[in-house]
Amino acid sequence: MAKDMTLLWGSGSPPCWRVMIVLEEKNLQAYNSKLLSFEKGEHKSAEVMSMNPRGQLPSFKHGSKVLNESYAACMYLESQFKSQGNKLIPDCPAEQAMMYQRMFEGLTLAQKMADVIYYSWKVPEAERHDSAVKRNKENLSTELKLWEEYLQKTSGSFVAGKSFSLADVSVFPGVAYLFRFGLTEERYPQLTAYYNSLKERPSIKASWPPTWLESPQGQDMLKDV
Amino acid sequence: MAKDMTLLWGSGSPPCWRVMIVLEEKNLQAYNSKLLSFEKGEHKSAEVMSMNPRGQLPSFKHGSKVLNESYAACMYLESQFKSQGNKLIPDCPAEQAMMYQRMFEGLTLAQKMADVIYYSWKVPEAERHDSAVKRNKENLSTELKLWEEYLQKTSGSFVAGKSFSLADVSVFPGVAYLFRFGLTEERYPQLTAYYNSLKERPSIKASWPPTWLESPQGQDMLKDV
Repeated sequence: MAKDMTLLWGSGSPPCWRVMIVLEEKNLQAYNSKLLSFEKGEHKSAEVMSMNPRGQLPSFKHGSKVLNESYAACMYLESQFKSQGNKLIPDCPAEQAMMYQRMFEGLTLAQKMADVIYYSWKVPEAERHDSAVKRNKENLSTELKLWEEYLQKTSGSFVAGKSFSLADVSVFPGVAYLFRFGLTEERYPQLTAYYNSLKERPSIKASWPPTWLESPQGQDMLKDV
Repeated sequence: MAKDMTLLWGSGSPPCWRVMIVLEEKNLQAYNSKLLSFEKGEHKSAEVMSMNPRGQLPSFKHGSKVLNESYAACMYLESQFKSQGNKLIPDCPAEQAMMYQRMFEGLTLAQKMADVIYYSWKVPEAERHDSAVKRNKENLSTELKLWEEYLQKTSGSFVAGKSFSLADVSVFPGVAYLFRFGLTEERYPQLTAYYNSLKERPSIKASWPPTWLESPQGQDMLKDV
Protein backbone atom coordinates (compact mmCIF):
# COMPACT_ATOMS: atom_id res chain seq x y z
CA MET A 1 0.00 0.00 0.00
CA ALA A 2 2.64 2.50 1.10
CA LYS A 3 4.57 1.80 -2.11
CA ASP A 4 1.77 3.62 -3.95
CA MET A 5 2.48 6.71 -1.89
CA THR A 6 4.84 9.58 -2.60
CA LEU A 7 5.65 12.41 -0.24
CA LEU A 8 7.63 15.46 -1.33
CA TRP A 9 8.68 17.32 1.80
CA GLY A 10 10.95 19.93 3.33
CA SER A 11 12.92 19.52 6.55
CA GLY A 12 11.45 21.27 9.60
CA SER A 13 8.18 22.28 7.94
CA PRO A 14 5.39 21.56 10.45
CA PRO A 15 2.83 20.67 7.74
CA CYS A 16 5.25 18.14 6.17
CA TRP A 17 6.08 16.71 9.55
CA ARG A 18 2.40 16.10 10.36
CA VAL A 19 2.02 13.83 7.34
CA MET A 20 5.25 11.98 8.15
CA ILE A 21 4.11 11.31 11.72
CA VAL A 22 0.81 9.83 10.51
CA LEU A 23 2.62 7.64 7.96
CA GLU A 24 4.78 6.31 10.83
CA GLU A 25 1.83 5.82 13.19
CA LYS A 26 -0.11 3.89 10.53
CA ASN A 27 2.86 1.63 9.67
CA LEU A 28 3.15 3.08 6.18
CA GLN A 29 6.92 3.66 6.31
CA ALA A 30 7.52 2.15 2.89
CA TYR A 31 6.29 5.28 1.07
CA ASN A 32 8.47 7.02 -1.52
CA SER A 33 10.04 9.91 0.28
CA LYS A 34 11.75 12.81 -1.42
CA LEU A 35 13.38 15.56 0.62
CA LEU A 36 13.41 18.92 -1.18
CA SER A 37 15.11 22.17 -0.25
CA PHE A 38 13.10 25.34 0.41
CA GLU A 39 16.37 27.30 0.29
CA LYS A 40 17.03 26.11 -3.26
CA GLY A 41 13.42 26.87 -4.23
CA GLU A 42 12.72 23.21 -5.02
CA HIS A 43 9.14 23.60 -3.75
CA LYS A 44 8.53 25.59 -6.94
CA SER A 45 10.03 22.91 -9.21
CA ALA A 46 8.07 21.36 -12.07
CA GLU A 47 7.78 18.11 -10.11
CA VAL A 48 6.01 19.86 -7.24
CA MET A 49 3.91 22.17 -9.45
CA SER A 50 2.55 19.20 -11.37
CA MET A 51 1.16 17.73 -8.14
CA ASN A 52 0.49 20.97 -6.33
CA PRO A 53 -0.36 24.16 -8.24
CA ARG A 54 0.30 26.15 -5.06
CA GLY A 55 3.98 25.16 -5.17
CA GLN A 56 4.00 24.12 -1.54
CA LEU A 57 5.24 21.23 0.55
CA PRO A 58 4.06 18.72 1.55
CA SER A 59 2.90 17.39 -1.79
CA PHE A 60 1.45 13.95 -1.25
CA LYS A 61 0.03 11.32 -3.55
CA HIS A 62 -1.61 7.97 -2.93
CA GLY A 63 -1.93 6.34 -6.34
CA SER A 64 -3.58 9.08 -8.38
CA LYS A 65 -5.16 10.72 -5.33
CA VAL A 66 -3.49 14.01 -4.44
CA LEU A 67 -3.59 15.34 -0.88
CA ASN A 68 -1.37 18.37 -0.46
CA GLU A 69 -3.05 19.97 2.52
CA SER A 70 -1.50 18.40 5.60
CA TYR A 71 -4.78 18.19 7.53
CA ALA A 72 -6.42 16.61 4.48
CA ALA A 73 -3.66 14.00 4.13
CA CYS A 74 -3.85 13.15 7.84
CA MET A 75 -7.64 12.79 7.86
CA TYR A 76 -7.57 10.71 4.68
CA LEU A 77 -4.83 8.35 5.91
CA GLU A 78 -6.57 7.80 9.23
CA SER A 79 -9.84 7.12 7.45
CA GLN A 80 -8.37 4.71 4.86
CA PHE A 81 -6.12 2.84 7.33
CA LYS A 82 -8.36 2.95 10.38
CA SER A 83 -7.46 -0.47 11.69
CA GLN A 84 -3.77 -0.37 10.79
CA GLY A 85 -1.17 0.89 13.28
CA ASN A 86 -2.32 3.30 15.98
CA LYS A 87 -5.85 4.64 16.05
CA LEU A 88 -5.63 8.43 15.80
CA ILE A 89 -9.28 9.43 16.28
CA PRO A 90 -10.84 8.28 19.56
CA ASP A 91 -14.25 6.55 19.48
CA CYS A 92 -15.54 8.06 22.73
CA PRO A 93 -17.70 11.06 21.70
CA ALA A 94 -16.30 13.35 24.43
CA GLU A 95 -12.70 12.55 23.55
CA GLN A 96 -13.45 12.85 19.87
CA ALA A 97 -15.06 16.27 20.34
CA MET A 98 -12.03 17.48 22.29
CA MET A 99 -9.71 16.05 19.67
CA TYR A 100 -11.39 17.88 16.78
CA GLN A 101 -11.62 21.09 18.79
CA ARG A 102 -7.90 21.12 19.66
CA MET A 103 -6.88 19.93 16.21
CA PHE A 104 -8.54 22.92 14.56
CA GLU A 105 -7.46 25.38 17.24
CA GLY A 106 -3.99 24.21 16.23
CA LEU A 107 -4.45 26.17 13.00
CA THR A 108 -4.78 29.39 15.00
CA LEU A 109 -1.64 28.53 16.93
CA ALA A 110 0.18 27.88 13.64
CA GLN A 111 -1.07 31.19 12.21
CA LYS A 112 0.05 33.24 15.21
CA MET A 113 3.41 31.49 15.16
CA ALA A 114 3.82 32.23 11.44
CA ASP A 115 2.88 35.90 11.98
CA VAL A 116 5.95 36.22 14.22
CA ILE A 117 8.50 33.87 12.67
CA TYR A 118 7.85 34.69 9.01
CA TYR A 119 7.21 38.43 9.45
CA SER A 120 10.33 39.71 7.67
CA TRP A 121 9.97 37.07 5.00
CA LYS A 122 6.29 37.79 4.30
CA VAL A 123 6.06 41.56 4.73
CA PRO A 124 8.01 43.76 2.27
CA GLU A 125 10.52 46.01 4.01
CA ALA A 126 8.65 49.24 3.27
CA GLU A 127 5.54 47.86 4.99
CA ARG A 128 7.15 46.67 8.21
CA HIS A 129 6.30 48.26 11.56
CA ASP A 130 7.75 47.68 15.01
CA SER A 131 4.22 48.06 16.38
CA ALA A 132 3.09 45.09 14.26
CA VAL A 133 6.04 42.96 15.39
CA LYS A 134 5.23 43.78 19.01
CA ARG A 135 1.52 43.04 18.59
CA ASN A 136 2.19 39.75 16.79
CA LYS A 137 4.46 38.65 19.65
CA GLU A 138 1.81 39.60 22.21
CA ASN A 139 -0.83 37.67 20.26
CA LEU A 140 1.43 34.63 20.15
CA SER A 141 2.09 34.87 23.87
CA THR A 142 -1.66 35.10 24.62
CA GLU A 143 -2.25 32.09 22.38
CA LEU A 144 0.49 30.07 24.09
CA LYS A 145 -0.96 30.80 27.53
CA LEU A 146 -4.23 29.28 26.38
CA TRP A 147 -2.38 26.08 25.42
CA GLU A 148 -0.60 26.11 28.78
CA GLU A 149 -4.06 26.01 30.40
CA TYR A 150 -5.29 23.29 28.07
CA LEU A 151 -2.28 21.11 28.84
CA GLN A 152 -2.64 21.72 32.57
CA LYS A 153 -6.22 20.39 32.37
CA THR A 154 -5.30 17.28 30.41
CA SER A 155 -2.34 16.78 32.79
CA GLY A 156 0.23 17.13 30.12
CA SER A 157 1.09 14.14 27.98
CA PHE A 158 -1.35 14.65 25.12
CA VAL A 159 -3.12 17.72 23.91
CA ALA A 160 -6.65 16.32 23.77
CA GLY A 161 -6.98 13.71 26.48
CA LYS A 162 -5.71 10.31 27.39
CA SER A 163 -4.19 9.17 24.13
CA PHE A 164 -2.07 10.33 21.22
CA SER A 165 -4.39 11.56 18.46
CA LEU A 166 -4.61 13.69 15.32
CA ALA A 167 -4.69 16.68 17.66
CA ASP A 168 -1.09 15.88 18.68
CA VAL A 169 -0.14 15.18 15.08
CA SER A 170 -1.43 18.64 14.18
CA VAL A 171 -0.03 20.57 17.13
CA PHE A 172 3.27 18.91 18.09
CA PRO A 173 5.32 19.94 15.01
CA GLY A 174 4.41 23.57 15.67
CA VAL A 175 5.36 23.27 19.32
CA ALA A 176 8.74 21.79 18.35
CA TYR A 177 9.17 24.61 15.85
CA LEU A 178 8.50 27.19 18.58
CA PHE A 179 11.26 25.71 20.75
CA ARG A 180 13.56 25.50 17.74
CA PHE A 181 13.03 29.24 17.32
CA GLY A 182 13.90 30.00 20.91
CA LEU A 183 10.75 29.76 23.02
CA THR A 184 11.92 29.75 26.64
CA GLU A 185 11.17 26.70 28.73
CA GLU A 186 10.82 28.76 31.93
CA ARG A 187 7.83 30.73 30.64
CA TYR A 188 5.93 27.76 29.21
CA PRO A 189 6.35 24.83 31.58
CA GLN A 190 3.37 22.82 30.28
CA LEU A 191 4.40 23.17 26.65
CA THR A 192 7.95 22.24 27.65
CA ALA A 193 6.77 19.09 29.42
CA TYR A 194 4.59 18.22 26.44
CA TYR A 195 7.47 18.76 24.04
CA ASN A 196 9.92 16.72 26.11
CA SER A 197 7.49 13.86 26.52
CA LEU A 198 6.43 13.58 22.87
CA LYS A 199 9.83 14.08 21.28
CA GLU A 200 10.72 10.57 22.41
CA ARG A 201 7.71 8.98 20.72
CA PRO A 202 8.94 6.59 18.00
CA SER A 203 6.90 8.13 15.16
CA ILE A 204 8.19 11.58 16.04
CA LYS A 205 11.79 10.51 16.57
CA ALA A 206 11.79 8.66 13.25
CA SER A 207 10.57 11.74 11.40
CA TRP A 208 12.65 14.36 13.24
CA PRO A 209 13.81 17.09 10.80
CA PRO A 210 17.21 16.01 9.44
CA THR A 211 18.45 19.62 9.26
CA TRP A 212 17.79 19.95 13.00
CA LEU A 213 19.83 16.82 13.69
CA GLU A 214 22.69 18.16 11.56
CA SER A 215 22.76 21.53 13.36
CA PRO A 216 21.18 21.14 16.77
CA GLN A 217 21.49 24.84 17.61
CA GLY A 218 18.26 26.71 16.89
CA GLN A 219 17.51 30.44 16.77
CA ASP A 220 16.57 32.85 19.54
CA MET A 221 13.87 34.84 17.75
CA LEU A 222 11.22 33.93 20.34
CA LYS A 223 13.28 34.43 23.49
CA ASP A 224 11.17 37.42 24.61
CA VAL A 225 7.77 35.89 23.75
CA MET B 1 -30.56 14.69 20.35
CA ALA B 2 -30.59 18.17 18.84
CA LYS B 3 -32.26 19.49 22.01
CA ASP B 4 -28.95 18.90 23.77
CA MET B 5 -27.27 21.25 21.32
CA THR B 6 -26.75 25.00 21.57
CA LEU B 7 -25.37 27.22 18.87
CA LEU B 8 -24.44 30.85 19.48
CA TRP B 9 -23.94 32.51 16.12
CA GLY B 10 -23.69 35.75 14.20
CA SER B 11 -25.49 36.52 10.94
CA GLY B 12 -23.37 36.28 7.79
CA SER B 13 -20.31 34.77 9.48
CA PRO B 14 -19.06 31.97 7.21
CA PRO B 15 -17.82 29.82 10.14
CA CYS B 16 -21.23 30.04 11.86
CA TRP B 17 -23.02 29.30 8.63
CA ARG B 18 -20.98 26.10 8.09
CA VAL B 19 -22.23 24.64 11.36
CA MET B 20 -25.82 25.66 10.60
CA ILE B 21 -25.70 23.96 7.20
CA VAL B 22 -24.47 20.71 8.75
CA LEU B 23 -27.16 20.84 11.43
CA GLU B 24 -29.75 21.18 8.63
CA GLU B 25 -28.21 18.43 6.51
CA LYS B 26 -28.16 16.01 9.45
CA ASN B 27 -31.80 16.76 10.42
CA LEU B 28 -30.77 18.35 13.70
CA GLN B 29 -32.92 21.47 13.30
CA ALA B 30 -34.27 21.30 16.86
CA TYR B 31 -31.05 22.73 18.36
CA ASN B 32 -31.13 25.78 20.61
CA SER B 33 -30.20 28.68 18.41
CA LYS B 34 -29.16 32.09 19.68
CA LEU B 35 -28.38 34.88 17.26
CA LEU B 36 -25.87 37.38 18.66
CA SER B 37 -24.72 40.70 17.27
CA PHE B 38 -21.06 41.28 16.36
CA GLU B 39 -21.87 45.02 16.08
CA LYS B 40 -23.01 45.12 19.72
CA GLY B 41 -19.95 43.10 20.77
CA GLU B 42 -22.09 40.22 22.00
CA HIS B 43 -19.41 37.72 20.88
CA LYS B 44 -17.38 38.99 23.85
CA SER B 45 -20.27 38.52 26.32
CA ALA B 46 -19.91 36.40 29.45
CA GLU B 47 -22.18 33.77 27.88
CA VAL B 48 -19.83 33.31 24.93
CA MET B 49 -16.62 33.61 26.96
CA SER B 50 -17.76 30.81 29.28
CA MET B 51 -18.02 28.44 26.31
CA ASN B 52 -15.30 29.94 24.19
CA PRO B 53 -12.30 31.70 25.75
CA ARG B 54 -11.45 33.16 22.34
CA GLY B 55 -14.69 35.18 22.36
CA GLN B 56 -15.63 34.07 18.88
CA LEU B 57 -18.70 32.79 17.07
CA PRO B 58 -19.75 30.12 16.45
CA SER B 59 -19.78 28.75 19.96
CA PHE B 60 -21.32 25.31 19.89
CA LYS B 61 -22.14 22.78 22.55
CA HIS B 62 -23.50 19.24 22.40
CA GLY B 63 -24.30 18.32 26.01
CA SER B 64 -21.08 19.19 27.78
CA LYS B 65 -18.95 18.80 24.65
CA VAL B 66 -17.75 22.13 23.30
CA LEU B 67 -16.88 22.54 19.61
CA ASN B 68 -16.22 26.16 18.74
CA GLU B 69 -14.05 25.68 15.67
CA SER B 70 -16.41 25.38 12.73
CA TYR B 71 -14.43 22.62 11.01
CA ALA B 72 -14.30 20.70 14.30
CA ALA B 73 -18.05 20.99 14.81
CA CYS B 74 -18.75 19.86 11.23
CA MET B 75 -16.40 16.84 11.46
CA TYR B 76 -17.81 15.87 14.84
CA LEU B 77 -21.46 16.13 13.76
CA GLU B 78 -20.85 14.09 10.61
CA SER B 79 -19.02 11.46 12.64
CA GLN B 80 -21.64 11.22 15.39
CA PHE B 81 -24.67 11.30 13.06
CA LYS B 82 -23.21 9.39 10.15
CA SER B 83 -26.39 7.58 9.18
CA GLN B 84 -28.77 10.47 9.86
CA GLY B 85 -29.76 12.90 7.12
CA ASN B 86 -27.35 13.37 4.23
CA LYS B 87 -23.98 11.69 4.18
CA LEU B 88 -21.36 14.45 3.98
CA ILE B 89 -18.15 12.42 3.59
CA PRO B 90 -18.09 10.11 0.54
CA ASP B 91 -17.03 6.48 1.00
CA CYS B 92 -15.20 6.17 -2.33
CA PRO B 93 -11.48 6.76 -1.57
CA ALA B 94 -10.92 9.00 -4.61
CA GLU B 95 -13.93 11.18 -3.83
CA GLN B 96 -13.00 11.27 -0.17
CA ALA B 97 -9.44 12.36 -0.95
CA MET B 98 -10.71 15.15 -3.18
CA MET B 99 -13.22 16.18 -0.53
CA TYR B 100 -10.59 16.54 2.19
CA GLN B 101 -8.20 18.30 -0.16
CA ARG B 102 -10.77 20.93 -1.22
CA MET B 103 -12.15 21.26 2.31
CA PHE B 104 -8.76 22.27 3.67
CA GLU B 105 -7.84 24.39 0.68
CA GLY B 106 -11.00 26.25 1.65
CA LEU B 107 -9.10 27.61 4.64
CA THR B 108 -6.64 29.31 2.31
CA LEU B 109 -9.50 30.81 0.33
CA ALA B 110 -11.06 32.06 3.58
CA GLN B 111 -7.72 33.56 4.68
CA LYS B 112 -7.15 35.40 1.41
CA MET B 113 -10.71 36.68 1.49
CA ALA B 114 -10.27 37.90 5.07
CA ASP B 115 -7.00 39.63 4.16
CA VAL B 116 -8.95 41.83 1.75
CA ILE B 117 -12.34 42.28 3.42
CA TYR B 118 -11.10 42.79 7.00
CA TYR B 119 -7.97 44.79 6.15
CA SER B 120 -9.08 48.13 7.63
CA TRP B 121 -10.63 46.40 10.58
CA LYS B 122 -7.56 44.29 11.38
CA VAL B 123 -4.68 46.61 10.52
CA PRO B 124 -4.25 49.80 12.61
CA GLU B 125 -4.43 52.97 10.51
CA ALA B 126 -0.76 53.86 10.95
CA GLU B 127 0.27 50.47 9.56
CA ARG B 128 -1.86 50.46 6.41
CA HIS B 129 -0.27 50.53 2.97
CA ASP B 130 -1.87 50.80 -0.45
CA SER B 131 0.74 48.32 -1.69
CA ALA B 132 -0.53 45.73 0.81
CA VAL B 133 -4.15 46.31 -0.20
CA LYS B 134 -3.18 45.85 -3.85
CA ARG B 135 -1.17 42.70 -3.15
CA ASN B 136 -3.95 41.18 -1.04
CA LYS B 137 -6.43 41.75 -3.85
CA GLU B 138 -4.07 40.16 -6.36
CA ASN B 139 -3.57 37.17 -4.08
CA LEU B 140 -7.32 36.78 -3.72
CA SER B 141 -7.77 37.00 -7.48
CA THR B 142 -5.09 34.32 -8.06
CA GLU B 143 -6.78 32.11 -5.47
CA LEU B 144 -10.20 32.56 -7.06
CA LYS B 145 -8.86 31.61 -10.47
CA LEU B 146 -7.67 28.32 -8.98
CA TRP B 147 -11.20 27.63 -7.76
CA GLU B 148 -12.58 28.53 -11.19
CA GLU B 149 -10.37 25.76 -12.60
CA TYR B 150 -11.40 23.31 -9.91
CA LEU B 151 -15.08 23.96 -10.58
CA GLN B 152 -14.56 23.65 -14.32
CA LYS B 153 -13.07 20.18 -13.77
CA THR B 154 -15.90 18.98 -11.51
CA SER B 155 -18.37 20.52 -13.98
CA GLY B 156 -19.76 22.94 -11.51
CA SER B 157 -22.41 21.79 -9.09
CA PHE B 158 -20.23 20.69 -6.19
CA VAL B 159 -16.72 21.60 -5.26
CA ALA B 160 -15.33 18.10 -4.79
CA GLY B 161 -17.12 15.80 -7.13
CA LYS B 162 -20.51 14.31 -7.71
CA SER B 163 -22.23 15.02 -4.43
CA PHE B 164 -22.68 17.69 -1.79
CA SER B 165 -20.07 17.16 0.93
CA LEU B 166 -18.21 18.80 3.79
CA ALA B 167 -16.09 20.50 1.13
CA ASP B 168 -19.18 22.46 0.02
CA VAL B 169 -20.17 23.09 3.63
CA SER B 170 -16.71 24.59 4.18
CA VAL B 171 -16.40 26.57 0.97
CA PHE B 172 -19.91 27.74 0.04
CA PRO B 173 -20.42 30.28 2.86
CA GLY B 174 -17.19 32.00 1.86
CA VAL B 175 -18.24 32.07 -1.79
CA ALA B 176 -21.58 33.63 -0.82
CA TYR B 177 -19.68 36.15 1.32
CA LEU B 178 -17.50 37.09 -1.65
CA PHE B 179 -20.54 37.84 -3.79
CA ARG B 180 -22.14 39.73 -0.90
CA PHE B 181 -19.02 41.92 -0.87
CA GLY B 182 -19.23 42.65 -4.56
CA LEU B 183 -17.37 39.94 -6.48
CA THR B 184 -18.35 40.37 -10.12
CA GLU B 185 -20.19 37.53 -11.80
CA GLU B 186 -18.60 38.29 -15.18
CA ARG B 187 -15.06 37.59 -13.99
CA TYR B 188 -15.84 34.37 -12.14
CA PRO B 189 -18.40 32.42 -14.17
CA GLN B 190 -17.76 29.05 -12.51
CA LEU B 191 -18.02 30.46 -9.00
CA THR B 192 -21.17 32.30 -10.05
CA ALA B 193 -22.75 29.10 -11.39
CA TYR B 194 -21.75 27.27 -8.21
CA TYR B 195 -23.20 30.03 -6.05
CA ASN B 196 -26.46 30.19 -7.99
CA SER B 197 -26.90 26.45 -7.93
CA LEU B 198 -26.20 25.90 -4.24
CA LYS B 199 -28.07 28.90 -2.87
CA GLU B 200 -31.30 27.05 -3.65
CA ARG B 201 -30.31 23.97 -1.65
CA PRO B 202 -32.76 23.58 1.27
CA SER B 203 -30.10 23.45 4.02
CA ILE B 204 -28.52 26.62 2.68
CA LYS B 205 -31.79 28.46 2.11
CA ALA B 206 -32.97 27.59 5.62
CA SER B 207 -29.79 29.01 7.15
CA TRP B 208 -29.40 32.08 4.91
CA PRO B 209 -28.08 35.05 6.96
CA PRO B 210 -31.13 36.96 8.26
CA THR B 211 -29.34 40.31 7.97
CA TRP B 212 -28.84 39.63 4.25
CA LEU B 213 -32.54 38.92 3.83
CA GLU B 214 -33.39 42.17 5.63
CA SER B 215 -31.09 44.27 3.47
CA PRO B 216 -30.45 42.47 0.18
CA GLN B 217 -28.01 45.12 -1.07
CA GLY B 218 -24.40 44.08 -0.42
CA GLN B 219 -21.18 46.06 -0.70
CA ASP B 220 -18.93 46.67 -3.67
CA MET B 221 -15.55 46.24 -1.98
CA LEU B 222 -14.52 43.40 -4.33
CA LYS B 223 -15.72 44.88 -7.60
CA ASP B 224 -12.15 45.23 -8.94
CA VAL B 225 -10.92 41.81 -7.77
